[in-house]
Amino acid sequence: MIDIAIPKGSLQNQTLQLFEQAGLEIRRTEREYNARINDPRVGKVKILRPQEIPSYVAKGYFDLGISGTDWIMESRADILTVAELNYGKQGPGKVKVVVAVPEGEKIYSAKDIRPNSRISTEYPVLTASFFSKLGIPVDIEYSFGATEAKVPELTDVVVDLTETGSTLRKNGLKIVDVILESTSQLIANKTSWADPEKREDIQAVETLLSAVIRARGKVLIDLNVPEDRIEEVISVLPSMKNPTISKLYNSGYYAVESVVDKSQVNLLIPRLKKAGAEDILELDISKIVP
Amino acid sequence: MIDIAIPKGSLQNQTLQLFEQAGLEIRRTEREYNARINDPRVGKVKILRPQEIPSYVAKGYFDLGISGTDWIMESRADILTVAELNYGKQGPGKVKVVVAVPEGEKIYSAKDIRPNSRISTEYPVLTASFFSKLGIPVDIEYSFGATEAKVPELTDVVVDLTETGSTLRKNGLKIVDVILESTSQLIANKTSWADPEKREDIQAVETLLSAVIRARGKVLIDLNVPEDRIEEVISVLPSMKNPTISKLYNSGYYAVESVVDKSQVNLLIPRLKKAGAEDILELDISKIVP
Amino acid sequence: MIDIAIPKGSLQNQTLQLFEQAGLEIRRTEREYNARINDPRVGKVKILRPQEIPSYVAKGYFDLGISGTDWIMESRADILTVAELNYGKQGPGKVKVVVAVPEGEKIYSAKDIRPNSRISTEYPVLTASFFSKLGIPVDIEYSFGATEAKVPELTDVVVDLTETGSTLRKNGLKIVDVILESTSQLIANKTSWADPEKREDIQAVETLLSAVIRARGKVLIDLNVPEDRIEEVISVLPSMKNPTISKLYNSGYYAVESVVDKSQVNLLIPRLKKAGAEDILELDISKIVP
Amino acid sequence: MIDIAIPKGSLQNQTLQLFEQAGLEIRRTEREYNARINDPRVGKVKILRPQEIPSYVAKGYFDLGISGTDWIMESRADILTVAELNYGKQGPGKVKVVVAVPEGEKIYSAKDIRPNSRISTEYPVLTASFFSKLGIPVDIEYSFGATEAKVPELTDVVVDLTETGSTLRKNGLKIVDVILESTSQLIANKTSWADPEKREDIQAVETLLSAVIRARGKVLIDLNVPEDRIEEVISVLPSMKNPTISKLYNSGYYAVESVVDKSQVNLLIPRLKKAGAEDILELDISKIVP
Amino acid sequence: MIDIAIPKGSLQNQTLQLFEQAGLEIRRTEREYNARINDPRVGKVKILRPQEIPSYVAKGYFDLGISGTDWIMESRADILTVAELNYGKQGPGKVKVVVAVPEGEKIYSAKDIRPNSRISTEYPVLTASFFSKLGIPVDIEYSFGATEAKVPELTDVVVDLTETGSTLRKNGLKIVDVILESTSQLIANKTSWADPEKREDIQAVETLLSAVIRARGKVLIDLNVPEDRIEEVISVLPSMKNPTISKLYNSGYYAVESVVDKSQVNLLIPRLKKAGAEDILELDISKIVP
Amino acid sequence: MIDIAIPKGSLQNQTLQLFEQAGLEIRRTEREYNARINDPRVGKVKILRPQEIPSYVAKGYFDLGISGTDWIMESRADILTVAELNYGKQGPGKVKVVVAVPEGEKIYSAKDIRPNSRISTEYPVLTASFFSKLGIPVDIEYSFGATEAKVPELTDVVVDLTETGSTLRKNGLKIVDVILESTSQLIANKTSWADPEKREDIQAVETLLSAVIRARGKVLIDLNVPEDRIEEVISVLPSMKNPTISKLYNSGYYAVESVVDKSQVNLLIPRLKKAGAEDILELDISKIVP
Repeated sequence: MIDIAIPKGSLQNQTLQLFEQAGLEIRRTEREYNARINDPRVGKVKILRPQEIPSYVAKGYFDLGISGTDWIMESRADILTVAELNYGKQGPGKVKVVVAVPEGEKIYSAKDIRPNSRISTEYPVLTASFFSKLGIPVDIEYSFGATEAKVPELTDVVVDLTETGSTLRKNGLKIVDVILESTSQLIANKTSWADPEKREDIQAVETLLSAVIRARGKVLIDLNVPEDRIEEVISVLPSMKNPTISKLYNSGYYAVESVVDKSQVNLLIPRLKKAGAEDILELDISKIVP
Repeated sequence: MIDIAIPKGSLQNQTLQLFEQAGLEIRRTEREYNARINDPRVGKVKILRPQEIPSYVAKGYFDLGISGTDWIMESRADILTVAELNYGKQGPGKVKVVVAVPEGEKIYSAKDIRPNSRISTEYPVLTASFFSKLGIPVDIEYSFGATEAKVPELTDVVVDLTETGSTLRKNGLKIVDVILESTSQLIANKTSWADPEKREDIQAVETLLSAVIRARGKVLIDLNVPEDRIEEVISVLPSMKNPTISKLYNSGYYAVESVVDKSQVNLLIPRLKKAGAEDILELDISKIVP
Repeated sequence: MIDIAIPKGSLQNQTLQLFEQAGLEIRRTEREYNARINDPRVGKVKILRPQEIPSYVAKGYFDLGISGTDWIMESRADILTVAELNYGKQGPGKVKVVVAVPEGEKIYSAKDIRPNSRISTEYPVLTASFFSKLGIPVDIEYSFGATEAKVPELTDVVVDLTETGSTLRKNGLKIVDVILESTSQLIANKTSWADPEKREDIQAVETLLSAVIRARGKVLIDLNVPEDRIEEVISVLPSMKNPTISKLYNSGYYAVESVVDKSQVNLLIPRLKKAGAEDILELDISKIVP
Repeated sequence: MIDIAIPKGSLQNQTLQLFEQAGLEIRRTEREYNARINDPRVGKVKILRPQEIPSYVAKGYFDLGISGTDWIMESRADILTVAELNYGKQGPGKVKVVVAVPEGEKIYSAKDIRPNSRISTEYPVLTASFFSKLGIPVDIEYSFGATEAKVPELTDVVVDLTETGSTLRKNGLKIVDVILESTSQLIANKTSWADPEKREDIQAVETLLSAVIRARGKVLIDLNVPEDRIEEVISVLPSMKNPTISKLYNSGYYAVESVVDKSQVNLLIPRLKKAGAEDILELDISKIVP
Repeated sequence: MIDIAIPKGSLQNQTLQLFEQAGLEIRRTEREYNARINDPRVGKVKILRPQEIPSYVAKGYFDLGISGTDWIMESRADILTVAELNYGKQGPGKVKVVVAVPEGEKIYSAKDIRPNSRISTEYPVLTASFFSKLGIPVDIEYSFGATEAKVPELTDVVVDLTETGSTLRKNGLKIVDVILESTSQLIANKTSWADPEKREDIQAVETLLSAVIRARGKVLIDLNVPEDRIEEVISVLPSMKNPTISKLYNSGYYAVESVVDKSQVNLLIPRLKKAGAEDILELDISKIVP
Repeated sequence: MIDIAIPKGSLQNQTLQLFEQAGLEIRRTEREYNARINDPRVGKVKILRPQEIPSYVAKGYFDLGISGTDWIMESRADILTVAELNYGKQGPGKVKVVVAVPEGEKIYSAKDIRPNSRISTEYPVLTASFFSKLGIPVDIEYSFGATEAKVPELTDVVVDLTETGSTLRKNGLKIVDVILESTSQLIANKTSWADPEKREDIQAVETLLSAVIRARGKVLIDLNVPEDRIEEVISVLPSMKNPTISKLYNSGYYAVESVVDKSQVNLLIPRLKKAGAEDILELDISKIVP
């Protein structure tokens, strides 16, 4: 039985939805941040700031947790990454921790930043390590938020999290370097992982969460094809895995079923039709376990 | 052709959604509580308080109706229960009519209630019958609502509907007994049921509504398995029904398709994988007719 | 590569949803009405008033566009209709351009309208053409909207778009004739269509959009049937297309899969059950390409 | 010190707002229906259904309460009306308990109602008394709500509360009689009223509530007027009360201040201007105690 | 008695609010665009597009109407402006009809626009007149909206309404000229104005509307001042009108009351305090009639 | 001219509203956190986290700022408090930084906390100083929020901000000590304050903000009283300041005007009436400068 830490705040909604789709619905109890998952493998569930989850997992307060790459790196917590879950605040996709300076500055990369510049950031550890590798001495100040507003009066450089960069642009900043790309990670305590029983439970949870993540980017394609064009249709299907083919009863047709990338469907369907496919159906999938 | 009474109020949204998913969409007309279902088997459709539906169905104003177990019992209406639909205000699940008293009272079961206690309730019939069976004389007062607020000043005991009990707890009450469990019921007029034509229409509607209810708790599992592990995979699948197995064309694999309980999926998938299943897909189902 | 014009306003939400479901998600850019579709076949995408789209497509500013039948006819634009997409503001269905007069008037058809009546309308071209064919001289005034409010003081007759007619009725009007029925149309520039490369891209987009529209009205029925009742079950299934039938492994059953009209399911399922079908499942479909 | 019962439901928002404006803000406590007013004259405050408040006040569970005329009459509770507060669900104004029948019926007054008609109502006591006075025997059935929907299938006549009658009209009903006009009443227990200390507290609360109600329909008019036109201006002002007049320092002007009906201001201001008033100001008033 | 046309759309909310504050509340009737004002001087009230109101007032369909300067000019309607009401969609303030071109263009004033440029606009009459005065031949195309999106592909120049210019800037446009400033106008039919009875009613309505508009920008300042500093305080007060001064009873103080601009209060209060004012109060005013 | 820092987050809405009511409306510019106040005395305006404002004011980046007592103390910033503004997130009132422990613990004051307890807090400086004074060594851990959720598993003691304590209670905690009471403070840079010109501007802004705060808790009472009861009425009025009394023209009455505490009005009005006051009016006040 394993204890799990769930991130409060920007990752919270997406995380609750992921667990529910995985069949591991997180229910709130009367004590606001204590939750419950109705599954024999799961013990205590707590909702905490993502900044704090890596350390709490490392210290063994929890066996498993979810946090962003940014906070895992910033906290330098000694944990094990079980799976990359590939979602952020808005849904799928990555965010970036970037270095930004006022648009008008003649700075085109972090290397051009002047020694002893003031840098405002929620990531002092990442920032110190990044500039120390570059060999540029800088004056780092912890920022409680709205960091992009501080340039140019209150600071010279900003190290901040961004999805599209548009908030930075609106505040007159340009991105000159990327410190890291961040996404949601499923992380485990190393001692828990070493324990075979706990590891089995961790892997079961990982299987279910990853099954949902995988299914989000895929659809099921179902089609019929006359015997003489089956090869042609198969050659059009993406090759990652053999499709499921069955001969139809009492007719010269095969039924073909294949899981394909949602983003490729708009190109694939016209090609399948050309190759002889008939009655193509697209269906949504809830989970995929390969 | 049958006339149907639909409950207004707390069951209304879930009922409208159920009928729509069943392919029996309820459309409002210009007269607010008169509705229409575009189906040759359905005549008049009216939206009424669930308290009143059992009596109206019993009197023959409607052939079919939906109400809660609580109001069916309270009204003592002489009707036939066609199906238990198993949803409440919030979705699936049951609610309970309970006996509650102030937390501090030394009462641990309805039997401990002092004779001549004042009882406030929306269910005077159920309450009278319950205490009469216990042989405790009580002073029952009809409550128009907010019953839990009346203890201890305005009443001694409360008989009220509750889902989780948390409203009662917040008002300083504890549950000491359960009078009945209530869920949505599909009820019919007995004379209509005796008429073969009407019964056929009632059963057709029941088939569709139950098909949706059944599908809500299930998912479709689709998987491939190598010939030599087919028995192992089948032995892991819940035994309620034989799975659909077909041999794949030109390969040593079987395709297996099975409907399983949504609540068991989180335990089942890891076991299927262990048993040799590959390419496990989970798909949502809209209706199931066994 | 083709340029596309998307309608702003009442058709906008339904259009954005259709393109997203078709795998052709329309993303906004920093310039509000300029959008982008992440597909190699699509170039410029702009969001414009549906009134203006037919002319812009005719002039070649765009290769492809979406507008309503009403504006295509009103603008007399010389375009080619690629597909009827069959959705309006509220979802599926048609709207009508009608002739309406005050309830109390002894007018029962457009033919009864008195010569030289004042007509208020957003469709002066359609209206002029309609009354000219009837041989009734009328005084047409362009209306900027809320046309139904102008009768009887400001105008005698109204030519307006309506879905259910209830807005007209509320304003004391009755419909006496229908000028045209309108739905969303996918329209192409004629020169683009004549160009084989562009035509291929137009057809690919049409395939995807129509696949979604088609799937909206259908569901997938999956069932098992014992060998001896297979003919009976098949005879009940709508005949548009042969169902997909496969023999189940090691049992006396067939699996049957068929796409059927959503609106027929409530009648079909009870019949299938009677014919011997077991384990009937209904699944949603995202796209259908015949 | 007095205990007060506040109505839950349709009168609740307006009541909470009235008490707040009166300087007697009702604050919720941790127990949902128990409230608190921070005033030495007020003891226990409870939020209850308006149907039940008259009886609870009559029984002495509360010294003071607010309910509608309809429930005071229906309950036949023996209470004292301290003040009519003149607000309903939507704000100021009265609602009516009416007798309604299907539009097409040849019934033009309650006297025309056929003996033994079925009457559906939430007010069985009021209805019985009303028809007994008319000498018409009727079959009264308690209605849990949505009463207007029951005509003509489930009942013949409806006795219901209405504000504008439009809900009745939409359901095909016409009003043929008014049983009573209802507004919010401040009611007291008769024994509490007889107690001089409690009566003083009841009157203090009444003074404050009535001061707010009175101010809602009035505004303060402030104007200057030259000496020679003072009589003319005064003659235009409504005569209920002498205006406050003071001579301005060192000029030939008077300042006049008067409280006038909000609904008369649109007629009064043009008249005042004509009579010689200058610099007319209109100001809002929070409370008026005459 | 006078008939009034009220603008639907962007000016509607502000107009309804203005009439309500003026004591002339506009109530909707069962026919959506027909309204009613409970005042003996007002007859028919209709809600219509602001584009159409000037013509309808000119033709005598209404005695009085509200529309923007832009549509009054565009329609060339022959009406009389009774008062400028000085509010727009968002509240007080003016909007402008401007000439805009792509940011990068070397055009700095309307004079620089190239002959035969395509101009897209909702104001073809104003645009034609403006460019004809400049002597530049242009190709004007009527735009149904979203005009700013059409540059540069669909048009070269835009003539559009703007409040802050930010929508234009976001679409890559710059303003190079202003054709007119627009605000809400109270307009009358000239024949109605010539009729003494109607003119009196028009003026009464104007008095009330203008009284509210005037009060919105003002506050009432109330202060006490010792006798010896009265002159100093008066000299600080804005000079538009003499303040109301009264001697206080039995003390060496004067009470001074003055109406001042809301926008000047932040500067005025510190100065009044310096000049000897004590107990300065600021109160809101609902109406001012000078 | 002075630069001002405005707090983002929980104090933001109340601060924006205060400045607007003070006639110093804060308008957003195109750069999100840079704002503008249209007043000749105000220069740069920036919206920043309240945690950071005290330091930025101390360093001279701003002349004036608003922050809570908690952050001013936590940051140990060397600033000058110009005025206590007495509002929090929800409106008027104070919040407290408290010490809380699990309900069941036998700890009744901070003194009872066991040495080396783990303490989780957003206020490490305040906490360290508080426990150092008590002579109890503790293990302080910085908390990023949701601190109350960490007891008992992740920490032993919590130091947190609370308004009513109900969030703590819901999480099973009890308050055992108060470290400080916090409200909004107007703070200035000490060098700016020493500069006579800047100080004058700071004081002008303070006058306006305090005038609004003061007016929020007061109302204006206006009444008439016959000559012979004037002394009695005056003796009932709160004595803080002499009321404004003027003799009415041509009658035996005085008009009395007095500003009184809103919270006392419910007690005062009944007393004034008893003392002979007539026509008592209560009016709202926007600003008070004493």
